[in-house]
Amino acid sequence: MGSETDKILEGNQLAGARLIRQLENADPEGLKVLKTLYPHTGKALVIGITGPAGTGKSTLVGRMITEFRRRGRRVGVVAVDPSSPYSGGALLGDRVRMERDAADEGVFIRSMATRGQLGGLSRTTREAVLVMDAMGYEVILIETVGVGQDEVDVAQNVHTTAVVSIPGMGDDIQAMKAGLLEIGDIFVVNKADRPGAEDVAGLLTMMLEMRGIPAGDWKPPVLRTVALNNEGIPELVDALLAHNQYLAASGKLQERIRQRELTFFRQLVIEMAALKIFDLAARSPEYAALLDNLRGRQIDPYSAAEKLVEGLQYKTGS
Amino acid sequence: MGSETDKILEGNQLAGARLIRQLENADPEGLKVLKTLYPHTGKALVIGITGPAGTGKSTLVGRMITEFRRRGRRVGVVAVDPSSPYSGGALLGDRVRMERDAADEGVFIRSMATRGQLGGLSRTTREAVLVMDAMGYEVILIETVGVGQDEVDVAQNVHTTAVVSIPGMGDDIQAMKAGLLEIGDIFVVNKADRPGAEDVAGLLTMMLEMRGIPAGDWKPPVLRTVALNNEGIPELVDALLAHNQYLAASGKLQERIRQRELTFFRQLVIEMAALKIFDLAARSPEYAALLDNLRGRQIDPYSAAEKLVEGLQYKTGS
Repeated sequence: MGSETDKILEGNQLAGARLIRQLENADPEGLKVLKTLYPHTGKALVIGITGPAGTGKSTLVGRMITEFRRRGRRVGVVAVDPSSPYSGGALLGDRVRMERDAADEGVFIRSMATRGQLGGLSRTTREAVLVMDAMGYEVILIETVGVGQDEVDVAQNVHTTAVVSIPGMGDDIQAMKAGLLEIGDIFVVNKADRPGAEDVAGLLTMMLEMRGIPAGDWKPPVLRTVALNNEGIPELVDALLAHNQYLAASGKLQERIRQRELTFFRQLVIEMAALKIFDLAARSPEYAALLDNLRGRQIDPYSAAEKLVEGLQYKTGS
Repeated sequence: MGSETDKILEGNQLAGARLIRQLENADPEGLKVLKTLYPHTGKALVIGITGPAGTGKSTLVGRMITEFRRRGRRVGVVAVDPSSPYSGGALLGDRVRMERDAADEGVFIRSMATRGQLGGLSRTTREAVLVMDAMGYEVILIETVGVGQDEVDVAQNVHTTAVVSIPGMGDDIQAMKAGLLEIGDIFVVNKADRPGAEDVAGLLTMMLEMRGIPAGDWKPPVLRTVALNNEGIPELVDALLAHNQYLAASGKLQERIRQRELTFFRQLVIEMAALKIFDLAARSPEYAALLDNLRGRQIDPYSAAEKLVEGLQYKTGS
């Protein structure tokens, strides 16, 4: 008893924080513990909260925490901060505001910085979710900023995605929603007491209708919130739970989870294989010569890579 | 004569567009041509124009094209559109506005959609740059939106990065600049005729000073432009060229190029190895069993990946 695994399963927040940090640092000890936790995961409802900076996502997440707690759910939050790929820190005052819930053992918040490494963000985020899941958090919120590949990758880690926008984003909505429209299960117009809320909501509704949704499929609702005044939050939580029920009833939840796990497995294989290949190659004199030729432009990188990968063999059985 | 390689080297735009499309589709024929072009690349000045949606980057790029043309430089543009990870198309009217330069053979503009695949965006962007470089474009502008991993990856592909912001971005600046501050060689406050331009410029200058720049290193200037009215554009182009001269004189340009090529080579190795591993594995009955166990949660994805990668061997020599 008293092992790290037991502590995590008992929901010990210090142990959870320690493990997530180890996994962020790719510490092999952390990985050992995570493996023992794996059979205890797969139960949490994982929700992504996505949208550009300035839409008040952190405040919204804070309100959602309170609402889920009111309904007796234990809540984990993974706040992803893509604004610090290099500095590794979080600057936002919002983070601090969220931490006020830290006294409640039913809430566990971790902030992750993106790293410039292969599979960095989506891997560490997924691992933090696994840890929180094993700790017994029933709802896990992943907060991400911005658009692009990050969001696509993170979207693969969640069951339900809420896309947040605000009035007055003008052209941005059109540009951003082209991508976010596809990943959103629920759309939130936050700061809906500002002028232009109807315009944004109307535009979103129109764009969703243009996309065309087959009968029987989930029709993403467009909700209005004023997170600062705590308005519209129960309705948002209702919609998130309704989407989860839809996924479970239609069998899509199982399919999403399975697909997600397969993708994660393939990603791990690629990461581990990359390490192994360069490790194996580093021991061969041919590799040093290849790098020299590459440096001297006697060979192009495509041919060089092909040459290196050619040497790979797979030994089946033992 | 008349081969695709010759056409590209002669600057044939139809052939260039065809090759870039082939490379986006991972067509092996395209790769064959690119290999033959490789020795003819490495000459262009590659500039990244990065910043959130709504900052007027496309208009700015349009003006920069005109200014570089006025100075007799041939200009290629790669417009990356991360807003369409799924739809694959570009919605922005700005794109169309830029295309007006299409009649000028000294300008070549391609729009790329991000793909949800490994190395997708940074690889296709880099390949488009290689093609334009081989076509004889002396300046290549890469326009990207948003923050996060995309920007970090794309930043590795350029020599000089201009980060664009606008007045009135408020808190967003602080949040975003945490990451963008590190990658910017030049900062542009566009729409500088709007109220608040001084505030943004002052904030940027202060943040750059707080960062601390060693004596003798490049000190990123903060410039003001009104792209719509064509104001501040020659100064911006001067600053971009000055940064390039600084890089060349300090030996950092060669270092950046070398580092970039090594990173690209490693990325290619990883991509090719991933394809090969899953191809090799697919032929082994053990792999099918492994996937079954993974699906049934009898094995965790880490142990499964380790098991698969364990079988990898490297055959040196021949």
